[in-house]
Amino acid sequence: MNYKKIGRYLSAILGIEAAFLIPAVIIGFVSRETPAALALLGTAAACLLCGVILFFLTKNAPNRFYAREGMVMTGVAWIVISLFGCLPFVITGAIPHFVDAFFEIVSGFTTTGASILPEVESMPKSLLYWRSFSHWLGGMGVLVFMMAFLSDRGKDTGSTVHILRAESPGPEVEKLVPHMRDSSIVLYVLYVILTVLNIIFLMLGGMTMFEAVCTAFGTAGTGGFGVRNDSIGSFSPYLQNVTTVFMLLFGVNFNIYFLLRFGRFREIRKNIELRVYLGFFAVSAILITLTTRFLYSGLGETIRHAAFQTASIMTTTGYTTVDFDVWPVFPKTILLILMVTGACAGSTGGGIKCSRVIILWRSLRRYVRKTVYPSKVESMKIGGQKVSEEVSSGVSLYLTLYAFVLVISFLLISLDNFSVETNLSAVLATLNNIGPGLSAVGPTANYGSYSVLSKLVLTFDMLAGRLELLPILCLMQRTTWRRR
Amino acid sequence: MNYKKIGRYLSAILGIEAAFLIPAVIIGFVSRETPAALALLGTAAACLLCGVILFFLTKNAPNRFYAREGMVMTGVAWIVISLFGCLPFVITGAIPHFVDAFFEIVSGFTTTGASILPEVESMPKSLLYWRSFSHWLGGMGVLVFMMAFLSDRGKDTGSTVHILRAESPGPEVEKLVPHMRDSSIVLYVLYVILTVLNIIFLMLGGMTMFEAVCTAFGTAGTGGFGVRNDSIGSFSPYLQNVTTVFMLLFGVNFNIYFLLRFGRFREIRKNIELRVYLGFFAVSAILITLTTRFLYSGLGETIRHAAFQTASIMTTTGYTTVDFDVWPVFPKTILLILMVTGACAGSTGGGIKCSRVIILWRSLRRYVRKTVYPSKVESMKIGGQKVSEEVSSGVSLYLTLYAFVLVISFLLISLDNFSVETNLSAVLATLNNIGPGLSAVGPTANYGSYSVLSKLVLTFDMLAGRLELLPILCLMQRTTWRRR
Repeated sequence: MNYKKIGRYLSAILGIEAAFLIPAVIIGFVSRETPAALALLGTAAACLLCGVILFFLTKNAPNRFYAREGMVMTGVAWIVISLFGCLPFVITGAIPHFVDAFFEIVSGFTTTGASILPEVESMPKSLLYWRSFSHWLGGMGVLVFMMAFLSDRGKDTGSTVHILRAESPGPEVEKLVPHMRDSSIVLYVLYVILTVLNIIFLMLGGMTMFEAVCTAFGTAGTGGFGVRNDSIGSFSPYLQNVTTVFMLLFGVNFNIYFLLRFGRFREIRKNIELRVYLGFFAVSAILITLTTRFLYSGLGETIRHAAFQTASIMTTTGYTTVDFDVWPVFPKTILLILMVTGACAGSTGGGIKCSRVIILWRSLRRYVRKTVYPSKVESMKIGGQKVSEEVSSGVSLYLTLYAFVLVISFLLISLDNFSVETNLSAVLATLNNIGPGLSAVGPTANYGSYSVLSKLVLTFDMLAGRLELLPILCLMQRTTWRRR
Repeated sequence: MNYKKIGRYLSAILGIEAAFLIPAVIIGFVSRETPAALALLGTAAACLLCGVILFFLTKNAPNRFYAREGMVMTGVAWIVISLFGCLPFVITGAIPHFVDAFFEIVSGFTTTGASILPEVESMPKSLLYWRSFSHWLGGMGVLVFMMAFLSDRGKDTGSTVHILRAESPGPEVEKLVPHMRDSSIVLYVLYVILTVLNIIFLMLGGMTMFEAVCTAFGTAGTGGFGVRNDSIGSFSPYLQNVTTVFMLLFGVNFNIYFLLRFGRFREIRKNIELRVYLGFFAVSAILITLTTRFLYSGLGETIRHAAFQTASIMTTTGYTTVDFDVWPVFPKTILLILMVTGACAGSTGGGIKCSRVIILWRSLRRYVRKTVYPSKVESMKIGGQKVSEEVSSGVSLYLTLYAFVLVISFLLISLDNFSVETNLSAVLATLNNIGPGLSAVGPTANYGSYSVLSKLVLTFDMLAGRLELLPILCLMQRTTWRRR
């Protein structure tokens, strides 16, 4: 294992984290929240110091950097930024317990939005900003950012590929390989443009600058931390609808925006993942409208809430406008299923991703046909492109791994004696980076009442979910650490 | 599709069903339950008549019989025997609604043991006997029986293989291929011996002949229909322990008994599936004992109940001695997970089977290693035997298919507005052929309050689960019915 090179990258990551803490520090001083501002500044200083020390310790790092280093580096980096990122909460006493603060910031970086806080409106603005900003950073990926702006052009392409592959959602990153660094920059530019558009639309609806920025961060990263106790519930219908639209936009594969940029509309129309994604959204929103109609005063209101909740859960954002825990079981079950399917690959959303669902569905049809006609050899095509055996069997292994993590987490947190519904939804909501679940972890509740063990399990699930299992799980496998 | 040959086999199956109804008819007349006896006799006559008609309609059936015919034949046969098998309940009015009666007998044949009856003690004995006997028949497989005793030796080996493969649980049937017919006979002989032993042990504990036979049928088939309203709860501790032991014995791969017969103890000791199976049992029983200790008066009693419930759920039998729905959530979650893992391949138990869990676990470890060392080629070995790529990827596809069926069923039955816990456990308990679930379908409740749609969905799940999904699902795929 090339520990030195990993350390080198970690030092860069810590430097970036220090830089990204500065806006929060400024907001703290401007809002006269001196203790919070100092805590944030202290954290930035600690990041910088550790980064510099690590930088000098890792001089002359050899260049070899393989998949193993990429995986380990990604897993470790996310844990490290979270360990530092939670310090402001602990130092200010806003979240006194370290495990709680760690849960909260991992929930931020992984764009989960699950909170242990019973209410947020009394929190210092600077801390709220940092909490929401962690969504924005985590959404596109901290390492993607580092690779886009720091790595030396031409050199290091090996590590670039391995790190991006480990951090990016969905099995699609390969396509961008030739100009990985450029692509990362373009991705971030797109991301910034969409976020700014979102802020503008929110401010046009009457949100303050602070609220708009924080809400847009939560939307862009498909995170879901709000700045009000009732999430988006007390904002106007216009603001709710704007958020619905932007959540959906951020759940789309960013490649679509590439295609849009170059006017390749035909390819967009034929994109199967996009169709399935929008189809899932439409069907779910309609079914939820039909089954929750009796709860709201008009059809318009019902559609608004149904569309908002559907978009929020499907894109794994986790904002809410109503308490969906009081809905009948059928619409709640739809939400539970959408938690798993998730958004598109190559978006900021979580879940197992629509593209995987499509591949799985095709694999299954072929599997059933194969038992009926054992001698028939059939290759799989999606959108005209052949899907290799490696990819399709990789996807079903991914689902299997997902199921194992789900089941083990479900068992461990059941020790707290919450209901099966609470536990199942808690695991689904963290593993898929949603945020709110049902019952005792529903939209009006929070994760604060779980034990320390359960919080650690759910924190693990958030990290595992965001990084698509492998970078976190490989840290736990002995062979990863073996000398070659 | 060779419809004639399929019809030919169906006529044999109907003949067998008619014959197997006779003991129930006799019990009916002996117990002076004339209406029930006549209903059973009428059903037997109907089976015989349809069988004979079908026999003459399918003369000169061509011999070609491939995987497609095997699959379709198995799926259809199970539906047909259930359609006839439920008639006695409908005719006598013991279960007035056809859907309910169909649910009940499918639950019998698939060895599920889920009931829509609020109480059974007032039922005619002959119907109770038929209900329990359906477990015994379904446990080892009705088609296996037909193949063992009816097919012409030497001829028809093609169809034998295809039918046995479709009906037998687990991916292991290949091993027995060379002398399939002999093996089927040996299997049935073993099955009879173990059942008789079970009856003797139960009668030694004071059960009446009738109770002992019915209970042994439910145990042998890992079914779970009881003859008392509280299942095994009001029987003596000795009888409960005997049942625990026999449930465990019937959950073992029957190959183990072959090995035992020939004194190959070393192979038994090294059998990984057996070890995992017993390991799961021991660990679960211990954890449940520790977490339910406070509910019972002594450690001995707690161990007895913990061991009984663990064995019952794990082998997918579904007998109960206590209402495990009042347990804390942790032991209940263990039971939910054991529902999925199930018993050994090649036993009468359901679930996804321990051998599949082992293969999945190994596949996952290899998958994680593969991401860390992409160039490493690794083959999988279990118990010294190489597991082919086809088998291992087939197993993860099987799990994927299982997950899809689970999720879709879960969604459909949620329309009835029972709790998430009820719905999830209902699907798990039927798809894995257990019987009782949690909450509104817990040990003291029944499936009667579900709507007709939900009952049909759960009936489908029982059939799909017993036949390991493919024979039932292929009936729903268009290409199966296409002319070649």
